[in-house]
Amino acid sequence: MQLTFTEMHAPTVGLAIQVDRQLYTEQSDFQRIDVFECEEFGRFLTLDGYMMLTERDEFIYHEMMVHVPLAVLGETVRKVLVIGGGDGGCVRELCRYPHIEHIDLVEIDERVVAVCREYLPTVACNLDDPRVHILYQDGLKYIRRIEDEYDLIIIDSTDPFGPGEGLFTMEFYGNCYKALRAHGVLVNQHESPFYKGDALACQRAHRNIVHSFELSRLFQAHIPTYPSGHWLFGFSSRGVHPVRDLKADDWNARGIETRYYNTNLHKGAFYLPNYVQRLLEKVEE
Amino acid sequence: MQLTFTEMHAPTVGLAIQVDRQLYTEQSDFQRIDVFECEEFGRFLTLDGYMMLTERDEFIYHEMMVHVPLAVLGETVRKVLVIGGGDGGCVRELCRYPHIEHIDLVEIDERVVAVCREYLPTVACNLDDPRVHILYQDGLKYIRRIEDEYDLIIIDSTDPFGPGEGLFTMEFYGNCYKALRAHGVLVNQHESPFYKGDALACQRAHRNIVHSFELSRLFQAHIPTYPSGHWLFGFSSRGVHPVRDLKADDWNARGIETRYYNTNLHKGAFYLPNYVQRLLEKVEE
Repeated sequence: MQLTFTEMHAPTVGLAIQVDRQLYTEQSDFQRIDVFECEEFGRFLTLDGYMMLTERDEFIYHEMMVHVPLAVLGETVRKVLVIGGGDGGCVRELCRYPHIEHIDLVEIDERVVAVCREYLPTVACNLDDPRVHILYQDGLKYIRRIEDEYDLIIIDSTDPFGPGEGLFTMEFYGNCYKALRAHGVLVNQHESPFYKGDALACQRAHRNIVHSFELSRLFQAHIPTYPSGHWLFGFSSRGVHPVRDLKADDWNARGIETRYYNTNLHKGAFYLPNYVQRLLEKVEE
Repeated sequence: MQLTFTEMHAPTVGLAIQVDRQLYTEQSDFQRIDVFECEEFGRFLTLDGYMMLTERDEFIYHEMMVHVPLAVLGETVRKVLVIGGGDGGCVRELCRYPHIEHIDLVEIDERVVAVCREYLPTVACNLDDPRVHILYQDGLKYIRRIEDEYDLIIIDSTDPFGPGEGLFTMEFYGNCYKALRAHGVLVNQHESPFYKGDALACQRAHRNIVHSFELSRLFQAHIPTYPSGHWLFGFSSRGVHPVRDLKADDWNARGIETRYYNTNLHKGAFYLPNYVQRLLEKVEE
């Protein structure tokens, strides 16, 4: 028997993964949730059939989402908002910083959290940290009433269709700006520049973010199980610069062990290929 | 009808590409050569079933193989040796430098060159440049009798099995060292760090190179159609440093238009993730 999970990365290109078994499946109020087990990547989570994370390479995504802003902002980060991210991966990395006092995790789908707690314990492992407050709400609505409150907002969303769609809009990014303190930073998962559909989504998100923030830069990582393996993240602020304001020595002095992130790679991640720069410049005016 | 080409990236993971048609197939004296046409990537070349290049993303690989060493060595590069690379992609990029006087392309398989001339004209387009000399020989044997002759050697090989196997050995790298002039640089395709088999090949190649060269650093690029999308290249020399000796202003003054490479990305490409550094450090003693 061969059981194959295929995620289409483009209309005619797919990554096919031979699966040992489907550990879980459910149609929640918001989306279809599946957990599979396979030889190459261990367990992996899909939402509406889209790859969210695998045990094998989730460290890349989560380390880049969290340590990049933390190495810039350092101890000024006390209160953090994570929108989406019900798997707990971003929370796990955030909990490694003792100076972070409060983490609000706003996840629309309670079932994602429950499923990850049960099936992905190495990812969801810090969701019970006393600093973590899980709010089962729509991030889009939650953020509307917040002002000047967070030092860091992380948008760990799904793709810009289905439940995650609103998290790529101008209204939403504008509200994130308002919810951040003056020195604050917004980090968001920003899709991929390569396949046409992803590149358009990336461009649209960038257009909406540069409309709201004084400074907005993209950074990249190699994530093998995401379409094209070339994934982008956004770093936006009122002026805090992701490379010029990097406090590499301070971060290195913390002794946080990472498998992907380091402070040299931090700088390199912001040096984008020309074709990606051009894609973004088109919407920057 | 659905015609699907699948390249296995690991024993249980494959990239599946829907193909419009197979344009060409041949069993040469050395390997099976195929050219396919598909919607997403245009035409693509496989050797023994392994993806060599696609029209859509070959610029990434070829720009990184050529412009990285050229931006370091500048006008001191007069004579270049390309081993493998019968598709002509590296030659195409090399020909953009007027100061390069002589390019030897040593390709074991005459049929690869002929097929690429016919089916991949945007890649093979500069093979008739008067500076290009094509030698249909085994690179492994060719290099043995060369001493102190080239300013730059580019190993544009297939994977380390089949006809390309010898191009990853200690003997071969030692002969490359001998064939280079004192200021010379060796650049090689260096496999991927992610999937087990590739990572082992990468480690083995690195062990063999550090045995021969005083300085050896790896750099990376996002190549969507290669396994994991995270591809490595080697930069080896007797002391010329790929980042400290980068002459960014000189390179930018040349006005060479690129779609992936730029001199900032050049630096960033050498900042590797921790897990890749550890993989390499294990064999550096």
